[in-house]
Amino acid sequence: MSTTLLAAPAAVSAASLAHRYQQVRQRTVLLCQPLLPEDTVVQPMIDVSPPKWHLAHVTWFFETFLLKAYLPGYSVYHPEYAFLFNSYYNSLGSRVNRADRGTLSRPALADVYSYRAHVDAQMARLLELADTLPDTFRELFELGLQHEQQHQELLATDIKYILSTSPLAPAYLPASVAPAAATAAPAVAWLPVPGGVSRIGYEGTGFCFDNEQAPHDVLTPDFELQNRLVTNGEYLAFMEAGGYQDFRYWLGEGWDLVQTQGWEAPLYWTLHEGQWHRFTHHGLQPVNMAAPVTHVSFYEADAYAHWAGARLPTEPEWEVAARYFGATPTHGTFLESNLLDPQPLPTDADPTRCHQLLGDAWEWTYSAYHPYPGYVRAAGALGEYNGKFMINQLVLRGGSCATPVSHIRLTYRNFFHADKRWQFTGIRLAR
Amino acid sequence: MSTTLLAAPAAVSAASLAHRYQQVRQRTVLLCQPLLPEDTVVQPMIDVSPPKWHLAHVTWFFETFLLKAYLPGYSVYHPEYAFLFNSYYNSLGSRVNRADRGTLSRPALADVYSYRAHVDAQMARLLELADTLPDTFRELFELGLQHEQQHQELLATDIKYILSTSPLAPAYLPASVAPAAATAAPAVAWLPVPGGVSRIGYEGTGFCFDNEQAPHDVLTPDFELQNRLVTNGEYLAFMEAGGYQDFRYWLGEGWDLVQTQGWEAPLYWTLHEGQWHRFTHHGLQPVNMAAPVTHVSFYEADAYAHWAGARLPTEPEWEVAARYFGATPTHGTFLESNLLDPQPLPTDADPTRCHQLLGDAWEWTYSAYHPYPGYVRAAGALGEYNGKFMINQLVLRGGSCATPVSHIRLTYRNFFHADKRWQFTGIRLAR
Amino acid sequence: MSTTLLAAPAAVSAASLAHRYQQVRQRTVLLCQPLLPEDTVVQPMIDVSPPKWHLAHVTWFFETFLLKAYLPGYSVYHPEYAFLFNSYYNSLGSRVNRADRGTLSRPALADVYSYRAHVDAQMARLLELADTLPDTFRELFELGLQHEQQHQELLATDIKYILSTSPLAPAYLPASVAPAAATAAPAVAWLPVPGGVSRIGYEGTGFCFDNEQAPHDVLTPDFELQNRLVTNGEYLAFMEAGGYQDFRYWLGEGWDLVQTQGWEAPLYWTLHEGQWHRFTHHGLQPVNMAAPVTHVSFYEADAYAHWAGARLPTEPEWEVAARYFGATPTHGTFLESNLLDPQPLPTDADPTRCHQLLGDAWEWTYSAYHPYPGYVRAAGALGEYNGKFMINQLVLRGGSCATPVSHIRLTYRNFFHADKRWQFTGIRLAR
Amino acid sequence: MSTTLLAAPAAVSAASLAHRYQQVRQRTVLLCQPLLPEDTVVQPMIDVSPPKWHLAHVTWFFETFLLKAYLPGYSVYHPEYAFLFNSYYNSLGSRVNRADRGTLSRPALADVYSYRAHVDAQMARLLELADTLPDTFRELFELGLQHEQQHQELLATDIKYILSTSPLAPAYLPASVAPAAATAAPAVAWLPVPGGVSRIGYEGTGFCFDNEQAPHDVLTPDFELQNRLVTNGEYLAFMEAGGYQDFRYWLGEGWDLVQTQGWEAPLYWTLHEGQWHRFTHHGLQPVNMAAPVTHVSFYEADAYAHWAGARLPTEPEWEVAARYFGATPTHGTFLESNLLDPQPLPTDADPTRCHQLLGDAWEWTYSAYHPYPGYVRAAGALGEYNGKFMINQLVLRGGSCATPVSHIRLTYRNFFHADKRWQFTGIRLAR
Repeated sequence: MSTTLLAAPAAVSAASLAHRYQQVRQRTVLLCQPLLPEDTVVQPMIDVSPPKWHLAHVTWFFETFLLKAYLPGYSVYHPEYAFLFNSYYNSLGSRVNRADRGTLSRPALADVYSYRAHVDAQMARLLELADTLPDTFRELFELGLQHEQQHQELLATDIKYILSTSPLAPAYLPASVAPAAATAAPAVAWLPVPGGVSRIGYEGTGFCFDNEQAPHDVLTPDFELQNRLVTNGEYLAFMEAGGYQDFRYWLGEGWDLVQTQGWEAPLYWTLHEGQWHRFTHHGLQPVNMAAPVTHVSFYEADAYAHWAGARLPTEPEWEVAARYFGATPTHGTFLESNLLDPQPLPTDADPTRCHQLLGDAWEWTYSAYHPYPGYVRAAGALGEYNGKFMINQLVLRGGSCATPVSHIRLTYRNFFHADKRWQFTGIRLAR
Repeated sequence: MSTTLLAAPAAVSAASLAHRYQQVRQRTVLLCQPLLPEDTVVQPMIDVSPPKWHLAHVTWFFETFLLKAYLPGYSVYHPEYAFLFNSYYNSLGSRVNRADRGTLSRPALADVYSYRAHVDAQMARLLELADTLPDTFRELFELGLQHEQQHQELLATDIKYILSTSPLAPAYLPASVAPAAATAAPAVAWLPVPGGVSRIGYEGTGFCFDNEQAPHDVLTPDFELQNRLVTNGEYLAFMEAGGYQDFRYWLGEGWDLVQTQGWEAPLYWTLHEGQWHRFTHHGLQPVNMAAPVTHVSFYEADAYAHWAGARLPTEPEWEVAARYFGATPTHGTFLESNLLDPQPLPTDADPTRCHQLLGDAWEWTYSAYHPYPGYVRAAGALGEYNGKFMINQLVLRGGSCATPVSHIRLTYRNFFHADKRWQFTGIRLAR
Repeated sequence: MSTTLLAAPAAVSAASLAHRYQQVRQRTVLLCQPLLPEDTVVQPMIDVSPPKWHLAHVTWFFETFLLKAYLPGYSVYHPEYAFLFNSYYNSLGSRVNRADRGTLSRPALADVYSYRAHVDAQMARLLELADTLPDTFRELFELGLQHEQQHQELLATDIKYILSTSPLAPAYLPASVAPAAATAAPAVAWLPVPGGVSRIGYEGTGFCFDNEQAPHDVLTPDFELQNRLVTNGEYLAFMEAGGYQDFRYWLGEGWDLVQTQGWEAPLYWTLHEGQWHRFTHHGLQPVNMAAPVTHVSFYEADAYAHWAGARLPTEPEWEVAARYFGATPTHGTFLESNLLDPQPLPTDADPTRCHQLLGDAWEWTYSAYHPYPGYVRAAGALGEYNGKFMINQLVLRGGSCATPVSHIRLTYRNFFHADKRWQFTGIRLAR
Repeated sequence: MSTTLLAAPAAVSAASLAHRYQQVRQRTVLLCQPLLPEDTVVQPMIDVSPPKWHLAHVTWFFETFLLKAYLPGYSVYHPEYAFLFNSYYNSLGSRVNRADRGTLSRPALADVYSYRAHVDAQMARLLELADTLPDTFRELFELGLQHEQQHQELLATDIKYILSTSPLAPAYLPASVAPAAATAAPAVAWLPVPGGVSRIGYEGTGFCFDNEQAPHDVLTPDFELQNRLVTNGEYLAFMEAGGYQDFRYWLGEGWDLVQTQGWEAPLYWTLHEGQWHRFTHHGLQPVNMAAPVTHVSFYEADAYAHWAGARLPTEPEWEVAARYFGATPTHGTFLESNLLDPQPLPTDADPTRCHQLLGDAWEWTYSAYHPYPGYVRAAGALGEYNGKFMINQLVLRGGSCATPVSHIRLTYRNFFHADKRWQFTGIRLAR
């Protein structure tokens, strides 16, 4: 991994590295605390990984890239764990088929926690040596933490999917965390964004993923962007207008899915006694019409945009606009709020400002996840981190209610296939 | 369910019914005691059900067919449990897809035990009324117990499969239960069985399944039967003679499986440092060459027989022989032994007697599982218990080391598809 | 191939061998004459082979087993034809995947006819030497002819399927061959068949397939058999009584097919302007209610029998009854009639006799296609002719309107999987 | 269809419209002339359509969009043909499943030619009225011709695939058309292309597809482009360097295909007696190392580029470069040459010029096939022509040896999924 791709973190003391390590690692454990051992094992669809696997995989990442590389005399905790908890690194050998992660009851959850404790203890030892280690150590350490934060978001969404499969509709959040109250969303406004040549991509000195580089100029047209996310209420109007029954709004491959999968609403929506409900981290709840719509595929986002006489923004447009509007995470909903659902915009939100750009819901763009000009895939296993996925996926921007706030950036490029719905994916319109 | 199909159990006191109920029900719980909650959730292949599901399904059977039918004022424990724990009864409504049983983390294992406790308490109340209830109640009660015993065998084999999928090869049995010591098997002998017209099928006054009826005459030829099961050592000779590489020994559909599944040994066999091992309830163990071979499909049993210049017995031949030799469960290995593996025949076993007919391993016959003459499918849900499976499966006879000893009979008809290998299925040759 | 399995044909002159060869070979060509080259190429489902493939495969059979073996100096017509036209003989090397037969446009139909002409000319030369050749030659020669007759039946049914896929519903038969007129079927009668020990299997001195041997005793109960095949009208009553909507009549695997395949009538039935029609070799025709129902799977035959309060006969019962009633092909409908549909029984047919046992429609039995006692698989490639299919299929008896009359026998064992419907398969009830 | 999307053809006389119609239509028939009826029916993979279907589908296009719309009193040739020959227009009703096109032997090839003759005669009548018809008529007429030219390219590549499946490796081209002689390719040169803001997309007054609009500015960096296509010899060096065995060169989804499909060379390559051959329209031929490599997927093109230390151009880069170099079809190989294979560049080709930009082989770009800014999907059935495919495909540029020369433009956007290999797809490197 080259220092030109992952900027080295600013020089910080070993103690503060250890503190940050503990904080990130603890958040993962906290996320799993409401779960039963049974919940941590299953894989109800191939995109979802068992929470037990997440807990171990992020630990394996530290063991493999840091302890084995930098801690003198370290030997692995268990010889089979690399086979069990390697995700997709061909450089690191064979591994359990992705579709079979949910067939493994062992190692038990308690064993995985022991593994975490072991690696944490060894990492503490290693971090004491931090000042003696090369820059690449700090880069890899930061990457390990960012990697674990990515899995925190996946944990939040995978847990939701896991619990949703039971007809018992169990709640993950305690009753003390109330769902957002139903209100009216403020009217949407179109905000102009001037065109021209702008620079996008990461240029700072902190951490970024290699896919955010190299920074480069883009040319965008004059366009307008909606000042908030599309709401459940607006999306319901599309549904009630026959949106899922009219092929004219849809891309061909999306229309095929509507037919074969029987889509007629976003994921997690269900009619219950004549009223639309959604499965949430609170269990089944009436749909809050003022809240942003989520769990829609790119196909649904695009079809909605067609129906609404608008379109989705491109990736360069989104980043240019976000910089233009000076988006910051100040107001968004992130993982730390523990709300785990995007929140309605207050009725009195300023109509001249652009809201919800960071946090709440990932925003589908109509841009393929391809390499930026000047992108270079790293050598070794970390070259597989991002680069090999740069085909057949679309870029999403802005983070969601399940993204750790310290993990998001204006330049952050998330990516999913057009048919995926289990993430907090939403819609913002352009024209 | 007609009384002509399931003979009513002999009149016994309500107290002894309750005692038997507790014994059977407790055995199921004992079988699951060595498991972690994680082990009880997964379904690594479609034939295997999660132990949690077994625990609940057998309980649902009592709730549905006894408590709901006979206990005044009984209301179901949970309205969704019929959907979750109905196995295959179309008469009783929709249900979870069989392939999705392993995707459900909830209800939790503890909830399932609460469900068992609730049903057990209500069954105790109901059994106090036993003397006032019609004969069909006693029949259904007995059927519920026999049904639970069938699931005990499935639990033993499903648990084995579940634990086998982990590269950690965890042991289910405590170290205090030692695997059988390696010895030499006594030489095999061919025992003649005289032909003629004989009667098979259940004629007694105890319990039997409807598929064991009506009793009827069959005509069998003079033939010879081997006096013990084929051993691992004998089967290894077939393997080493190229049995899995020579299509001439195989049925066409079997040969296709050899190719597409890459079969080259029985299920659970693996080469470990140049020596054949088997995954067992003790974890990975060297193959005991004197013990009966198990976990072979019908195709493998038939190919072995071809190679050995012999054949598999038909179902009538097996039952006629078993009656002729006076087979009793005295010497076989059954579930209650807690050995969970067929045992080698003692070196000094009497060569003039026929051994291992009951217990140790189910014996594949070359007879289709079709209705006996005079078989009548029962009305209602219980008509789905056996009758609807009478196609494309083969009969196995004799019970195995995972069968409760009180559950087996000379007339018992077990049945599996020809490709199944996860049961304790073995081979006895005829000619 | 052992002479104990295929009885040698009676000594006949070389000239009469040649005459018979020409007759059989010519019939195949006549069957294909109404086809366009386009019709001879396609494979609309895996069970169907392109007519061009049939024409070449039966020719390859003579080339491989006779010319190569017995004609001095013979070299194969084309080195790739063994790969292209071997059906399923592992002994004879690799071959085109069965599912890909319909992807091959070459060799062209004209090339295949040239191949036939070449082999026919060489066979003429070989037959001149017949008196000098060993008995096995005559056996193989007879087998080649019987094999070609089997493919004549398949040609008739595959052509029907091929033409049926087009919405143009083209007719194969000329208008001069009229479909049977609609009449009323005579009332059905139950004929008693006395039970006891009887002999079945082929015992004569003519040709039989190895699967008809060894002849052996069977024990059958007293039972009754219907004196004619079930008609379309009777089957329609089952449909109108909700037969396809009520799982209670169905075997489990059959009910799954009803659901997943959307079965609601026999194959080829379609509602056209409110009236049931069938696709036939005449194109689309109104269903003749007096004619025997055909193109039903075993599952449908069995479900119909359940609904009618009866059952299907077993294979021993069928043969015992056919011998008892002295069935002969005198009155049945066979391939030579060129009617290609089973014919209604005349209204005045004698109610005390058993009709339609030979010809018209293959009759599903509730017996698995397993080896007879004493059956021995031949050595070499011909051991693959029948023996390797003896699993997961059911026996059908009696021949159909697409069977050459000289090909059928009372002991003839046909076999198909329970879900197959594209053959002329029908129903006769027992009780 | 709006006149802003498809520019109206220049005013021309009715006579010259008729002349052009005949020329285009005749070319299609000429392409099919070497085929046997058998060749025109089969569909050996889902992407390939039977030639018979192509012949009919392009005819149906004229019938549907022109004759039905503009010829007074026209009634369709056959009521089922819309079902049989509609490709993918939901607006125009149900149709044969794409995967089933190769199962239909009827209508016969001769019937399809009759259909063509009928439509041609009616089109002649309609064209006599051309001066009285609105502008949209001329637009649709031109679209019909362009559509037929697209299918001419598909015919050439589908025919190649169809003939390739036979082990007989039949030749399509007559022996009088010789394959290109083996020579040495001239050394490759890198040509600089200056960056900046440029305009791409169609701006002229002739015909273009709606996906080439709206014209718009793009910003491209300074970059270099190779002055010719990558040759078979260069690609073989990649293969011999282990390119198909090293995951590091590959996108993840591409590497999966290498594994599961067993790719180890471009499509149609095969080792024959130790030497690489390709299946061509001449049958099997030794690989000409100087000729451009074709029949590579995007994954292979991208992996080759990685291995060569370069990359694929983006779509804007390609068009900017093609305009910069003044690419014209003067020198390329097109359908009309009847060579049906890209030709080697002459050894003495000017190294300062950019060759083969138009014709010979489609060039994969690393740009997704998404709508241009300002793209508007047309109303009605023609809105399905291009717009609904704008997801999960990549843009290819420049045309191939199977593209009619009058059909290609610098702005032409072709598109295929990344795994497709049956088109004449090649590689040009950028850096």
